[in-house]
Amino acid sequence: MMRIDILTLFPEMFTGVFGSSILKNAAEKEAASYHITNFRDYSDNKHKTVDDYPYGGGAGMVLKPQPIFDAVEQLKTENETTPRIILLCPQGERYNQQKAEELAKESHLVFICGHYEGYDERIREHIVTDEISIGDYVMTGGELGAMVVIDSVVRLLPGVLGNENSPILDSFSSGLLEHPHYTRPSDFRGMKVPDVLLSGNHSKIAEWREKESLIRTKNRRPDLLSSYPITEQQKKWLNE
Amino acid sequence: MMRIDILTLFPEMFTGVFGSSILKNAAEKEAASYHITNFRDYSDNKHKTVDDYPYGGGAGMVLKPQPIFDAVEQLKTENETTPRIILLCPQGERYNQQKAEELAKESHLVFICGHYEGYDERIREHIVTDEISIGDYVMTGGELGAMVVIDSVVRLLPGVLGNENSPILDSFSSGLLEHPHYTRPSDFRGMKVPDVLLSGNHSKIAEWREKESLIRTKNRRPDLLSSYPITEQQKKWLNE
Repeated sequence: MMRIDILTLFPEMFTGVFGSSILKNAAEKEAASYHITNFRDYSDNKHKTVDDYPYGGGAGMVLKPQPIFDAVEQLKTENETTPRIILLCPQGERYNQQKAEELAKESHLVFICGHYEGYDERIREHIVTDEISIGDYVMTGGELGAMVVIDSVVRLLPGVLGNENSPILDSFSSGLLEHPHYTRPSDFRGMKVPDVLLSGNHSKIAEWREKESLIRTKNRRPDLLSSYPITEQQKKWLNE
Repeated sequence: MMRIDILTLFPEMFTGVFGSSILKNAAEKEAASYHITNFRDYSDNKHKTVDDYPYGGGAGMVLKPQPIFDAVEQLKTENETTPRIILLCPQGERYNQQKAEELAKESHLVFICGHYEGYDERIREHIVTDEISIGDYVMTGGELGAMVVIDSVVRLLPGVLGNENSPILDSFSSGLLEHPHYTRPSDFRGMKVPDVLLSGNHSKIAEWREKESLIRTKNRRPDLLSSYPITEQQKKWLNE
């Protein structure tokens, strides 16, 4: 079972997400367990502050090292583990499916979520093993990034995805974007399903899907195509 | 006030996130309002199904057009708006800060969140105005992606971020990654703050920060640096 710890100042943000769908199922199947710590509880000063002004001046506040060092130390000791300790931040490496697969092999993940504040650099240097950014956009805190990483990792754990949740959206596993999908009715308010999908001709259908997948990738994500091994036939389609 | 609608089969996932921090404040200040619709309620068949097998065969299920067309139509009619209708999916354009700023100018956003399933292509073609991917990784559904987009957009709305939440993490606004931050104590268990930050010499501090910011960007995200206008002085630092 994978143990997942979250250090956050907003524990209530996680309730709905951990209590629904795949993440809930994973906990019920004992594939993963979630543990939330409000690191304010570890503050050693009487006002329970966790942040302070930045040295050298400037706007904003910076998370103090002490509460986070102590909270992580406690988790390591209690669980007798050497967890991956993940900081969600814009400066981190860009998260991708390969990283999700890497993290899915671990038995203990700890996520540190700041909120508004910057992190004291000593947290990055001496505690954190992985700095991750889920994308080039600014969010209020690390909590949503942690949920994104946890969802993408936990669904890869053995036994979590049943057949009922077939990975139809797994665009990044094949290296190409998915072809279009259609379901009934074949004519919805005048909008029709392509004839080939109704033909029952399986090789034609497979060819149509491969072609659509290639063309969509070329139009929307040419960067993915550049590292994809294209066959001669596929080249012809793309030049059509 | 920005109106935000979510179409989802997992309404309970949003409670904690909409009820905390900036998103909660934005609602209290009437900068944004959140409305969640379970589109299963719009299914016109007696079993209230919202998905069906894909035409042409294959694994997985596909979201039917009818419930989503009807739910969106209802929202447009009730609100007399022409909203941006956003589909979260791996095939979408990659989300970034520029897109967040663009969406922050709208008055009505509708998010369509699939879960496990693919989307019938007619939903993409005839209803959706923006297909967005928050990154190259596979998630169970569009809900977390919608939360990410909503957080990054709502914090840009006028009046939402007070001074207490200064955007210290806004790496992507300047074009470079943030320099390191430090706060008290200056010596934490033997780990020390760089002397320059304790010097009180503001021009030296500004120079150190600029240099660290450049070096960090070069080491971690050279792609950002390629579109950044570097001065001669900065070139020298990078070559040191």
